[in-house]
Amino acid sequence: MFDKLHEECGVFGIFGHPEAANLTYLGLYALQHRGQESCGIVAADGLHLKAHLGMGLVSDVFKKTDIFEQLPGSSSIGHVRYSTAGGNDMKNCQPIMVDYSRGSIAVAHNGNLVNAEELRSKLEKSGSIFSTTADTETIIHLIARAQSDSLVERVCESLQQVKGAYSLVFLTETRLLAVRDPNGFRPLSLGKLDDAYVVASESCAFDLIEAEFIRELDPGEMIVVDKDGLKSFFPFKETRNTPCIFEYIYFARPDSRIFDRMVYSVRKEFGHQLAREYPVDADIVIAVPDSGVPAAMGYAEEAGLPLELGLIRNHYVGRTFIEPQQSIRHFGVKLKLNPVRDIIEGKRIIVVDDSIIRGTTSRKIVKMIRNAGAREVHIRISSPPASFPCFYGIDTPSRKELISASHTMEEINRYITSDSLGYLSIEGLHTAVRKFGDGGTGFCDACFSGKYPVKFPRLKADNQLGLF
Amino acid sequence: MFDKLHEECGVFGIFGHPEAANLTYLGLYALQHRGQESCGIVAADGLHLKAHLGMGLVSDVFKKTDIFEQLPGSSSIGHVRYSTAGGNDMKNCQPIMVDYSRGSIAVAHNGNLVNAEELRSKLEKSGSIFSTTADTETIIHLIARAQSDSLVERVCESLQQVKGAYSLVFLTETRLLAVRDPNGFRPLSLGKLDDAYVVASESCAFDLIEAEFIRELDPGEMIVVDKDGLKSFFPFKETRNTPCIFEYIYFARPDSRIFDRMVYSVRKEFGHQLAREYPVDADIVIAVPDSGVPAAMGYAEEAGLPLELGLIRNHYVGRTFIEPQQSIRHFGVKLKLNPVRDIIEGKRIIVVDDSIIRGTTSRKIVKMIRNAGAREVHIRISSPPASFPCFYGIDTPSRKELISASHTMEEINRYITSDSLGYLSIEGLHTAVRKFGDGGTGFCDACFSGKYPVKFPRLKADNQLGLF
Amino acid sequence: MFDKLHEECGVFGIFGHPEAANLTYLGLYALQHRGQESCGIVAADGLHLKAHLGMGLVSDVFKKTDIFEQLPGSSSIGHVRYSTAGGNDMKNCQPIMVDYSRGSIAVAHNGNLVNAEELRSKLEKSGSIFSTTADTETIIHLIARAQSDSLVERVCESLQQVKGAYSLVFLTETRLLAVRDPNGFRPLSLGKLDDAYVVASESCAFDLIEAEFIRELDPGEMIVVDKDGLKSFFPFKETRNTPCIFEYIYFARPDSRIFDRMVYSVRKEFGHQLAREYPVDADIVIAVPDSGVPAAMGYAEEAGLPLELGLIRNHYVGRTFIEPQQSIRHFGVKLKLNPVRDIIEGKRIIVVDDSIIRGTTSRKIVKMIRNAGAREVHIRISSPPASFPCFYGIDTPSRKELISASHTMEEINRYITSDSLGYLSIEGLHTAVRKFGDGGTGFCDACFSGKYPVKFPRLKADNQLGLF
Amino acid sequence: MFDKLHEECGVFGIFGHPEAANLTYLGLYALQHRGQESCGIVAADGLHLKAHLGMGLVSDVFKKTDIFEQLPGSSSIGHVRYSTAGGNDMKNCQPIMVDYSRGSIAVAHNGNLVNAEELRSKLEKSGSIFSTTADTETIIHLIARAQSDSLVERVCESLQQVKGAYSLVFLTETRLLAVRDPNGFRPLSLGKLDDAYVVASESCAFDLIEAEFIRELDPGEMIVVDKDGLKSFFPFKETRNTPCIFEYIYFARPDSRIFDRMVYSVRKEFGHQLAREYPVDADIVIAVPDSGVPAAMGYAEEAGLPLELGLIRNHYVGRTFIEPQQSIRHFGVKLKLNPVRDIIEGKRIIVVDDSIIRGTTSRKIVKMIRNAGAREVHIRISSPPASFPCFYGIDTPSRKELISASHTMEEINRYITSDSLGYLSIEGLHTAVRKFGDGGTGFCDACFSGKYPVKFPRLKADNQLGLF
Repeated sequence: MFDKLHEECGVFGIFGHPEAANLTYLGLYALQHRGQESCGIVAADGLHLKAHLGMGLVSDVFKKTDIFEQLPGSSSIGHVRYSTAGGNDMKNCQPIMVDYSRGSIAVAHNGNLVNAEELRSKLEKSGSIFSTTADTETIIHLIARAQSDSLVERVCESLQQVKGAYSLVFLTETRLLAVRDPNGFRPLSLGKLDDAYVVASESCAFDLIEAEFIRELDPGEMIVVDKDGLKSFFPFKETRNTPCIFEYIYFARPDSRIFDRMVYSVRKEFGHQLAREYPVDADIVIAVPDSGVPAAMGYAEEAGLPLELGLIRNHYVGRTFIEPQQSIRHFGVKLKLNPVRDIIEGKRIIVVDDSIIRGTTSRKIVKMIRNAGAREVHIRISSPPASFPCFYGIDTPSRKELISASHTMEEINRYITSDSLGYLSIEGLHTAVRKFGDGGTGFCDACFSGKYPVKFPRLKADNQLGLF
Repeated sequence: MFDKLHEECGVFGIFGHPEAANLTYLGLYALQHRGQESCGIVAADGLHLKAHLGMGLVSDVFKKTDIFEQLPGSSSIGHVRYSTAGGNDMKNCQPIMVDYSRGSIAVAHNGNLVNAEELRSKLEKSGSIFSTTADTETIIHLIARAQSDSLVERVCESLQQVKGAYSLVFLTETRLLAVRDPNGFRPLSLGKLDDAYVVASESCAFDLIEAEFIRELDPGEMIVVDKDGLKSFFPFKETRNTPCIFEYIYFARPDSRIFDRMVYSVRKEFGHQLAREYPVDADIVIAVPDSGVPAAMGYAEEAGLPLELGLIRNHYVGRTFIEPQQSIRHFGVKLKLNPVRDIIEGKRIIVVDDSIIRGTTSRKIVKMIRNAGAREVHIRISSPPASFPCFYGIDTPSRKELISASHTMEEINRYITSDSLGYLSIEGLHTAVRKFGDGGTGFCDACFSGKYPVKFPRLKADNQLGLF
Repeated sequence: MFDKLHEECGVFGIFGHPEAANLTYLGLYALQHRGQESCGIVAADGLHLKAHLGMGLVSDVFKKTDIFEQLPGSSSIGHVRYSTAGGNDMKNCQPIMVDYSRGSIAVAHNGNLVNAEELRSKLEKSGSIFSTTADTETIIHLIARAQSDSLVERVCESLQQVKGAYSLVFLTETRLLAVRDPNGFRPLSLGKLDDAYVVASESCAFDLIEAEFIRELDPGEMIVVDKDGLKSFFPFKETRNTPCIFEYIYFARPDSRIFDRMVYSVRKEFGHQLAREYPVDADIVIAVPDSGVPAAMGYAEEAGLPLELGLIRNHYVGRTFIEPQQSIRHFGVKLKLNPVRDIIEGKRIIVVDDSIIRGTTSRKIVKMIRNAGAREVHIRISSPPASFPCFYGIDTPSRKELISASHTMEEINRYITSDSLGYLSIEGLHTAVRKFGDGGTGFCDACFSGKYPVKFPRLKADNQLGLF
Repeated sequence: MFDKLHEECGVFGIFGHPEAANLTYLGLYALQHRGQESCGIVAADGLHLKAHLGMGLVSDVFKKTDIFEQLPGSSSIGHVRYSTAGGNDMKNCQPIMVDYSRGSIAVAHNGNLVNAEELRSKLEKSGSIFSTTADTETIIHLIARAQSDSLVERVCESLQQVKGAYSLVFLTETRLLAVRDPNGFRPLSLGKLDDAYVVASESCAFDLIEAEFIRELDPGEMIVVDKDGLKSFFPFKETRNTPCIFEYIYFARPDSRIFDRMVYSVRKEFGHQLAREYPVDADIVIAVPDSGVPAAMGYAEEAGLPLELGLIRNHYVGRTFIEPQQSIRHFGVKLKLNPVRDIIEGKRIIVVDDSIIRGTTSRKIVKMIRNAGAREVHIRISSPPASFPCFYGIDTPSRKELISASHTMEEINRYITSDSLGYLSIEGLHTAVRKFGDGGTGFCDACFSGKYPVKFPRLKADNQLGLF
């Protein structure tokens, strides 16, 4: 899956470890799949905050050892960003760090606010000046304007005005705060490494630094860590558990545990369920690597068919790849995938992928597999048709670009030139997830069902939805 | 397999296409796995050669579009390098391009000469001045000194003095030459794209540019392409077909066809053979990704056991990764692999990898899998113990660093703390390869057997072999 | 004069010319002597502001042609900065550009506010967040908070709260504003190029772009230029003309006309006056180049002595010069100046410089000239002893570092090892200036006299004045 | 003088000082006026040579302190280059350093060989491969081919084949060699710093490092410095003293002593002589700074007229200056010079410059001075008309571009729009030089007289001379 939805961000925080910035670096590295556009770390030594941010991968932005000398202190937060709200230039890198009348504060944000523009406009009218175009900065200005004496109260007062999806990590000179929005859209976990508390978007970050997983934050929970230990608060009147089901389908790493389930197992179960819903007579199952692999394994297992590596992925794909000009044609997917002719030739092939967004990539994959000699090509998608844009932190294309928004399954099958096409049903999706526990029955599946758990302004929706 | 042998290089050439440099760029991109240290392209427009070279990946070195405007012409050669002979600085980038009395010539080299130092010393004594420390430059000086009038004869005259492993591609203002050494150690294939001839280390480069695979060059064959078409020569008195069997085990891409066989199929057959030689009672088979995957699939198939993704690979690993300092321990393999606890916990696991070099990585992998809850860990290696250094183009550590050179299988099993350990036998290796054809029965397996098909100077061997 | 006072900034603005950014670039280039630390240009095309800023010289920051394509529009402002208030990092580059509720505004500032900290603290308490440490940002926040509907009124309202020295140029989408503080500390001139209005710190910027000099802005004057032409305002209750006399001594370019006089002529007259006040029997007069040359010419003329190039300046001095380490001694002034032995040997030399700050440089110059064989060395300084720090935009060292603050002329003469030493008197300074017109009898000479025309907070003074 | 002749290079060497590379850096810095295109240093520690080279000014190429850690050892040579022979890319930076059969050798070259192409072609025919396009590399190949056992003999044998202008400094692991060609075209001096010997193109380099000037090398002299001290050789059959008189006119720094005379004094005497040859009734004398200043001082003195700073030079001119596009006109000389209107207005002005090459700059200067209000503008040039190209190391334009080659003085006067024009006569030039000693009566004045002391190949001359 390349022509796809982009997760916007990953966050990490640690309090009380002599190697705080180093561990944040490792944590971000483990969360790199959640954002490759830019990254940053802010560290606190009890008196001051220091930051280092940059465009690019964690291993590029932090490739000089002496960066860590500039980030002293025993607490630190970090961020990897794909860029949802706000353009993708340098000044929108996170964590955002500011000085205000009460000292310094930094924040790292995963999610998307639905009323950011409205709040920003109100703040600007009374004289606030914004430095970035990121909606995260709105939160900071609300905190700077808040009149309560205690930081915790100021943050609560500010977040009560904000609507949408957010997992936030704050750092001040002496404290670490982490908050999950009342709907719990985005994941956020708590761990422990020796005496230090750690928070991260996904548990895979704990694995790398050998921290112990404790639990996930609850929707609407705020935790505050300082020298006196950890305290938990629930500042919102109501909370409602609607975690993003797409995290299971594509975003989260298969070795992470989020929303109380192991991603790999859920993803494989999608394959089992899909095989039950859309069986077909075929010779082998192949995956579109890497994200389609677990579902393909489930499908093959359930169908009793051999799984083969029919498509080899080139892992040197970089974002700077130059498309050759003039006479030679568009390479697109060929740069990333190459079929193994010996495997494919003369066979009836089931190809498992995790989603179809615009359809153009799937069409190229089918063509590539046919050119390698396949007799039949059956496409199986381990999620339902994505027909609605996301307003909670996923960078979906506008509705008119989503092929399922405007085409029937039959039309899509014809467009991508497959012999047959099957999507996992919405019910099947929930069934598969429920197999691993009842928690979170209220998963947000708005991108499939159009049922949005948090309202958003009309104008925004119109812009985004196009012809809708 | 990370702590491993490094293939040194990949070469590519094209003659007679208006997009020569662009296609070379794509070809190198497909061959990137053969060398990530540096790369370069030289193009010829009939009158002049132009070059662009740099340290880093193909997509980094050629990330500006205007580079291609500086590389006009309808013929071009390219190179990706890991660096065997010669240090790893800028001036050893290839292709090497020089002006000499007969015009300009560029060369790209995959392999390693065993008598380069001896030849260099002789040339320097009579007044030649070398610009690089690469043994490839020796060939260029021999050509510049050669007295024959025709380029083909000068190249033949020069190569007759050279010993070792080489697949070479030369470019002059008006011609492309490609040569495989008389032993055929390294692969080199011929293809066609419209009217243009193409040569490449591996066939996967043809797939990307949609060129048609024609055949591999024979050991000792030299082909010359110019405006009058392609001619083939066999300038060496004897040739002996001893291609490098390690290409099948690790180096080549699974979707390439080399030495008349599909790499993926051979690699999977290693797994089948290994399962027959070293069966064990277990619950699941997992691979050390990515190189161990095909053999693991073969093993699981043969053993009738489920294959699971028990280790997840982080594909953002860059070469600039900073190891965190001071108090926190060495991360090594954890940066690249993370176990999926749900899969592993309580199970008896067979782990398939393609080779063990020093043993330290395997030891860490076993520990990591045990920490994730495995009941038993059985290591299966899809190649024989590597006990001897390579002098034909693979960057092996010195003999004393090769754990199999000095330890019994039992000792290694104890060192890496596995419950059992099995290597594929040398006979099994050849049996598996032969399953796909009789060609090349004389494969070079010197790294396993110590039987070196081409002699090398004593001193060099002593240096390299350490205590041998 | 190297070990000296630093002027902080130069400003430039143009409204109504199709090449606005290009001309701003040229204007800044002509003002480069007023600040070499960083520079920037903001351009407006009627709808948007675009900026390009960077550390370094104008010719370095704007060395790519395509920068100008990013700065379209017919109005533009620019800034060169030495950095007085605010550290010298990237984020303090000017012009400062912000978006606020009324649109976008950019500002370039030459001068120094004496109540910036007090205002900033008040603004932060009510929730403003500052992005820089520059006092200029305070003005922007005041404007964002101002409640008047018209921009002109908002700017007036804001500047009425500000105290200190400032020549300011503002740019909005559709307007250019320029203001000189009520004391007129810093220069600011108005010119015209075809139909476009131009403002610049010094008239030499008009010469380069071939604009016509119209007049200087009056102290306390604000001009507003938009599509309807130019309007002038005087928003301050009182104004008092106290321009900085040090501009004549050192800062301004000799080919500029400021405060109604040509700098070169005033500077030469300082030499005449100095020769009258401190004559001495000698053979030749030499200047400390380049700033001491005009006064040396005046001195030589008045004294009837020959002027010689006894010290040659190396114009390749860059800010990155590395001082050789270890065993070899400090080079300092030798890197910039070399004596011409043939001229100096055996002679009685009068050396004219424009000021002495710490005394260390003068001491080295005297030594260098003696080593070149001078029989006598007489130092003549074309300004009075600088004994007081500046709070109006000059980056003076603290009072304890000013050698004249704590030493008598006799002691200084002994310290720098000259045979005699003479400073221009404060009266002589004013006399010389008055020779070219009566205007501005109230010149600020606080650095010599300690008479500060605008009060400043006690604390700031204490910090700055050291033991005072 | 901007539109001018370019000196190609400066060389420096030191043997026997613990800070060798540091001192070379300082020496190059003092010689920066002889070449700003690129520079480099090679140091030797008795066993190895190490190099650092780069494009740009000395202070840019060596701006990191750790560069010097990579250049250990007690001997070192350096080079600044303008680039005469060879293009101006990186690979033509000097010193050139190579490994050959006898070890390593580096060379820095000031001058130009007239038979380099002929020698190169011969060497290439017998198999030498050149890495650069610089004629200096020819000397290195000759040395590598030379059969003598001793280095000194090999160098002598090689230089006997070479014709033209050269001051060379060689460095090997254990020795420093310096040679001046038999005509002594370019300067080269010997100095001493404690126990270390130093050589440099000009004595100003000694002044900076506080080395003692000993003497200039004689034409055709070779000195060899090693641990046993200094030896002098005269390897050429004949020598003939024809130093380049243009060094006095423009190239050398005024504070240097070369060819036994102080440059400043000679240059000022040119002014005296010029005033005697071309007096005119006028009010003031002004110089075209900086190179015209000494002659202007001499002229003013002789004429009894006041000297004024009528043109102010902008010292921030960099090589990357972007000419503004489109509608606004060519700025050229205005970027570098600005007239001081107060000085010029209503006056009859004598403008002294050191030479006229194409005439376009002089024309602009005259126009600029008239625009500033001058009543009359009289141009006086402190050298004879330059009508012939140089083949000995000065980068002259082709003959057709030299305005004096094809126009009478009257025509030039009309073209540059001056009221009168006077050039120093060839006799006057020699008279002025002779005033400071009889040595070197045979100065090369080929650029004025066309009398070339060393023959050059016809073809080369034709190419260079254009319509000649």
